[in-house]
Amino acid sequence: MQTDRRNRVIIQNVQPEIDDGRHFIKRVVNEWTQVTADIFSDGHDAVRASLHYRHESNKNWTEAYMEAQPNDVWTAAFQVTQKGFYHYKLEAWVDHLLNWHNGFLKKQADRQDMAVELLIGADLLKRTAKGYPKAKAAALNKAAELLEKKGAYDEATAAVLSQEFADMVQAHPMKQFQTWYDKDLRVRIGRDRAVFSAWYELFPRSAAAKPGDHGTFKDVERILPRLQELGFDVLYLPPIHPIGTSNRKGKNNSLDTGPHEPGSPWAIGNTDGGHTAIHKQLGTLKDYQHLIAEAQKHGLEIAFDLALQCSPDHPWVKEHPEWFLWRPDGTIAYAENPPKKYQDIVPINFETEDWRNLWEELKKVILFWVDAGVLIFRVDNPHTKPFAFWEWVINEVHSQHPDVIFLAEAFTRPKIMGALGKLGFSQSYTYFTWRNNRREMEEYLTELTQTEWRDYYRPNFWPNTPDILPYHLMDAGANVFVLRLLMAATLSSNYGVYGPSYEFMENKGNTNGKEEYLDSEKYELRTYDWNARNRITEAMTAINRIRREQPALQRTFNLTFTRADNESLMSFVKVSDDGSNVIWCVVNFDAQYTQSGYVEVPKKLLGIEGRVNLKVTDLLTEETYHWFNDWNYVEINPNKFPMHLFWVSMR
Amino acid sequence: MQTDRRNRVIIQNVQPEIDDGRHFIKRVVNEWTQVTADIFSDGHDAVRASLHYRHESNKNWTEAYMEAQPNDVWTAAFQVTQKGFYHYKLEAWVDHLLNWHNGFLKKQADRQDMAVELLIGADLLKRTAKGYPKAKAAALNKAAELLEKKGAYDEATAAVLSQEFADMVQAHPMKQFQTWYDKDLRVRIGRDRAVFSAWYELFPRSAAAKPGDHGTFKDVERILPRLQELGFDVLYLPPIHPIGTSNRKGKNNSLDTGPHEPGSPWAIGNTDGGHTAIHKQLGTLKDYQHLIAEAQKHGLEIAFDLALQCSPDHPWVKEHPEWFLWRPDGTIAYAENPPKKYQDIVPINFETEDWRNLWEELKKVILFWVDAGVLIFRVDNPHTKPFAFWEWVINEVHSQHPDVIFLAEAFTRPKIMGALGKLGFSQSYTYFTWRNNRREMEEYLTELTQTEWRDYYRPNFWPNTPDILPYHLMDAGANVFVLRLLMAATLSSNYGVYGPSYEFMENKGNTNGKEEYLDSEKYELRTYDWNARNRITEAMTAINRIRREQPALQRTFNLTFTRADNESLMSFVKVSDDGSNVIWCVVNFDAQYTQSGYVEVPKKLLGIEGRVNLKVTDLLTEETYHWFNDWNYVEINPNKFPMHLFWVSMR
Repeated sequence: MQTDRRNRVIIQNVQPEIDDGRHFIKRVVNEWTQVTADIFSDGHDAVRASLHYRHESNKNWTEAYMEAQPNDVWTAAFQVTQKGFYHYKLEAWVDHLLNWHNGFLKKQADRQDMAVELLIGADLLKRTAKGYPKAKAAALNKAAELLEKKGAYDEATAAVLSQEFADMVQAHPMKQFQTWYDKDLRVRIGRDRAVFSAWYELFPRSAAAKPGDHGTFKDVERILPRLQELGFDVLYLPPIHPIGTSNRKGKNNSLDTGPHEPGSPWAIGNTDGGHTAIHKQLGTLKDYQHLIAEAQKHGLEIAFDLALQCSPDHPWVKEHPEWFLWRPDGTIAYAENPPKKYQDIVPINFETEDWRNLWEELKKVILFWVDAGVLIFRVDNPHTKPFAFWEWVINEVHSQHPDVIFLAEAFTRPKIMGALGKLGFSQSYTYFTWRNNRREMEEYLTELTQTEWRDYYRPNFWPNTPDILPYHLMDAGANVFVLRLLMAATLSSNYGVYGPSYEFMENKGNTNGKEEYLDSEKYELRTYDWNARNRITEAMTAINRIRREQPALQRTFNLTFTRADNESLMSFVKVSDDGSNVIWCVVNFDAQYTQSGYVEVPKKLLGIEGRVNLKVTDLLTEETYHWFNDWNYVEINPNKFPMHLFWVSMR
Repeated sequence: MQTDRRNRVIIQNVQPEIDDGRHFIKRVVNEWTQVTADIFSDGHDAVRASLHYRHESNKNWTEAYMEAQPNDVWTAAFQVTQKGFYHYKLEAWVDHLLNWHNGFLKKQADRQDMAVELLIGADLLKRTAKGYPKAKAAALNKAAELLEKKGAYDEATAAVLSQEFADMVQAHPMKQFQTWYDKDLRVRIGRDRAVFSAWYELFPRSAAAKPGDHGTFKDVERILPRLQELGFDVLYLPPIHPIGTSNRKGKNNSLDTGPHEPGSPWAIGNTDGGHTAIHKQLGTLKDYQHLIAEAQKHGLEIAFDLALQCSPDHPWVKEHPEWFLWRPDGTIAYAENPPKKYQDIVPINFETEDWRNLWEELKKVILFWVDAGVLIFRVDNPHTKPFAFWEWVINEVHSQHPDVIFLAEAFTRPKIMGALGKLGFSQSYTYFTWRNNRREMEEYLTELTQTEWRDYYRPNFWPNTPDILPYHLMDAGANVFVLRLLMAATLSSNYGVYGPSYEFMENKGNTNGKEEYLDSEKYELRTYDWNARNRITEAMTAINRIRREQPALQRTFNLTFTRADNESLMSFVKVSDDGSNVIWCVVNFDAQYTQSGYVEVPKKLLGIEGRVNLKVTDLLTEETYHWFNDWNYVEINPNKFPMHLFWVSMR
């Protein structure tokens, strides 16, 4: 028994804490972190607890006293104001000065003689004072003097009963035998766009004005004003690298490829270069950087597609054959998911003996594009590359460039999706695409926003992608397209669309019965009428404007589902960080018929005591209603807007 | 990047694991531990996982392959066969041999050419063989030879497709780049009585035959045959030490104490001695040991009351004044809970500078009684002594005497109750005493038996104690006493009663309005007619016999609540570890009126497919019913038995 084991307080069940502190939690600048823990001691003595936190650049910790809640739960919060990492830890102790003061008040009220109590208090005050610098100790010592002064019983008792004295006790914790909870818990702080972004995906080769022409970065620049008008802030382009020619895939993923078919841009690399080269027909690196700059002028960032796989023609195959798997017959191992083979792709073998050089090379690829001006990476299939690699490379990049955002394009099993979030991805694709009714949507969003997931997993909701035309969009009309768009953009503060297909309501599925587009743009050139307008473009313009104007829609974890008495209607409320902005959405899942019903005012959430008196203004239609009851009538016609998007004014 | 980071598998969310492995879980000999974890890799390669476990006395680990469940959950179980500690840890890896074999089967079914695949397999078999001793490697090398043999395509393909080959692959994991989950997770294994016990509490001073006489250990011996007949197996006596005289409490906790009042036995110590002395009027240490031996002959163990507090007359107060708190006026600090004072008790100051010697002395007290023959300690108010002390002292005692059982008598806040269980207490008092209806009882038992609590907290259900006459027993009739007894004894495999008061249905509450006995035996002598018989003694005799005969009632965590369509009825099923013994209880909470309703057969739990065909025999009444439906009628008259206790026979 060498160490002093007189610490009497237990600190347990600290939240947030991901996998025992193995992973950091995520915030953006100015967000708060609410920390809770079970804290208790033996016996009945008074317990106190503190939260300590600091930015990694600051050696000094800031201390915030925790507050006791029912059932031995304690809580405190801290705000992060700088990018990078914050650390936090907890401290708790039995506070004998506070304990004596509490007892004094009770005994005095019980009319007991307090003479000895005054002397005990004087002793505790003096002992407490020893723990403080002279200036801070002065008040304590002065109080102690009074308490032990002969003949000053009444004066001393009155002093102890004063509010001033109580404040002094609160401000001067008497720490001894403290328990520390120090697992080096961390918060990573990124920039705002990590939590608030509207993505538009397009294939630059389809940006040409004339059908049959191969689009260029210059063509994309022509579209920027339109995207700005629609209100998007991230423009994501599929891979821009040279495309492999070996086993190139043709129209509709065919193996019979004609001589002029462009191939899938995800089959990366040919004799022109690999992951740091640009497909000639799109332009040059200089053109790409020009696009980045032009986009910025239109309020748009360019997101880069990081797809860590190769075509068999990729330069690495010759330069680093040890990074690939070779078969006994001397051929390279293609990607496969037996019995299926993907012959235009060869996977990188991360189990290579040369894995250290491989990791370094891949890091160089990312830094090459960062140097070119890219700050957002949409990462293709991260779940088919090792977790340890992502954790390392994201940390390496962030330590130099804290503003870089990584979006994990993983559509796989839930625990793998979560793991990628824990390891450092800034945003993640989700199952939103396959949540079809109120029950499914409420269950999923509750898991994402009201459980531990909220601390490590930032959803980005996509109604479609070039890989996914969900069944509910097949042969669907505009009502469904508007519905899924508005839901994505309101439920989640990060959302995106595979743009032209969505705008122009492409709804024809592949004949293979899967959730894939017919004549997928992945394998062929397309052209679009970039001047067209329809209900979708109107909805995009409106919702993106509203999102920019309403802070409540710029966060995801501020979501609360509220009650609606019609199963086709889903009602939810979002409140801004400072509480001043309240948005209340009511969705009609029925794309065919008008649905009506009553929705309940969440009085507790809105801080309403007594009678309801609300003005709700639909920001999509500008209609205004006055609500005076606990339950209020709504009626939603999907042929107008499939959702009420109310701005709530409390009167 | 020094260490090899090519391990691709993540192991997380391991259960059981208490507070990140900070605390051990508990079992008794022959019980099983089911271990689950989330285990997954990047990509689509085959993953395998193993559970490793060993007894602390054995350096070699035993390996059990884990099985995959849905949603990336893996599971395996191990049985503990020796007392002391077991250790367990997990291992997982991508198994390329298995992965190749899986792929081979699919590609072959797809009628692909397998020539190269056979060569790949031969290479993997040979590489796998290198990891095994010669004998185990032989089969692998032999198979590899066949696979690479020229002209043996058909033979080799057929071999790979054989069940024999699949078994070989399963039996020879190809381990590389393994992930380990090794937090030194531990199980403590105790003896059976820690999970199956029926306690009877009596004050030995009330065991005298003649009213007014002070009972002795000899008197207690006379009662042993009766307790054996009632079927109890633990006889718990409140403290047997000399009782303090300073500020001794009189009848009904009065401060005005007459000269002949015996005082509370929890005010421990006077000039005759302290925690290792015996109150003279009860007998000698030799008499106590004689009682222990006699009890054993009647199938009863004596439980000792460990109450670590002192009367002001305790020898320690003079010998170790530094172990107590002294006030500025030179007086000793009494126990208090302001504004209340407990002047017959002085608490030990565990914050003393001399805490190391104090801890050692308290350990000596326990070992003194262990040497005297005590193996069960009921610990009085453990929550008013430091957690760290209990963890240390229980571990010290268990390391020498693994059979010692500690029952925590803490009726305090839930997290403190739980913490004491985590720190090592073998059993714990509970809130059963205050759960009054079906909903409360189901909620509480679900928490205790179906959550993490089951791994560290062993409930012991008490309908009453000398400190607690719950409101529902005040002025209550026999129906309520029988009901609470049967519920305690069937819901929990550990239960106990403050015996004579319960048997003789004392139901008068103290006039202070609290849940306390009028004329509490804590402060005065009593005498009882130890030959009396009534409905309670009949119920005790019956339920204790049934518990000994039915293994399902000898466990607590095997509980499942099943559906009953009347809110006054509560239905639950218990199944023995080996599945052969099924007990189904239906309780009528209404002590006044007969209640009837339908209860549902838990077909999945009982493994019933198709039609129900059950014979249920009420072991209390010997009535038998034949049930052929999913829901069956029950009718329970509390004036007979307030519960059906069915033995279930499946036909």
